Amino acid sequence: MEKKFVAINYIHCEPHYQERFEELFSTRAHAIDRMPGFVDMQVLKPNGEGDYLIVSHWSSEEAFKTWTSSPEFIEGHKRGFEDIKQAKVQGLNPPMTSSFKTYKVISN
Amino acid sequence: MEKKFVAINYIHCEPHYQERFEELFSTRAHAIDRMPGFVDMQVLKPNGEGDYLIVSHWSSEEAFKTWTSSPEFIEGHKRGFEDIKQAKVQGLNPPMTSSFKTYKVISN
Repeated sequence: MEKKFVAINYIHCEPHYQERFEELFSTRAHAIDRMPGFVDMQVLKPNGEGDYLIVSHWSSEEAFKTWTSSPEFIEGHKRGFEDIKQAKVQGLNPPMTSSFKTYKVISN
Repeated sequence: MEKKFVAINYIHCEPHYQERFEELFSTRAHAIDRMPGFVDMQVLKPNGEGDYLIVSHWSSEEAFKTWTSSPEFIEGHKRGFEDIKQAKVQGLNPPMTSSFKTYKVISN
């Protein structure tokens, strides 16, 4: 399947949460893998300072959008969302914040 | 070949230069493709505002570093470097600026 559409989730992770964050991905639910139009994904750890990047490849923008409003999206983010909720309950800052940006593949 | 190491060149491109920038990549020299340890690359165009991303995958950090100091690096960037030089000669701002960031692939 051709990689036409790329979504990157830029994750700012607090230092104390990095080990847990990496564990979440090494034991991830693989819920996203079941989505139609999903091609593959990679978790990138910066050398030095900076955000982690979750890079996912899709056959189309529509396939990506369908995923973000699917039960698989909730399932795949369950433990991370729970960690953020627990921090809030305890009056702490969120252990991570994230923002999606999307791209078209224009050349290989 | 396994993708272990990722380099992303974040390119800020002036609006008037975007068409030329995209043309440079659609007609690129493919000099990088000859480098040992090079796996593949993608040019990502942001949906909306933001930087272009040149994402290259390598078998190791060493392979990436070898490339950045190789004749192939100069050859592959020749036309872009020339455009920057021409702008400077004319007393104009550079049409694009770039910064490399590197990553380890920690999960798929």
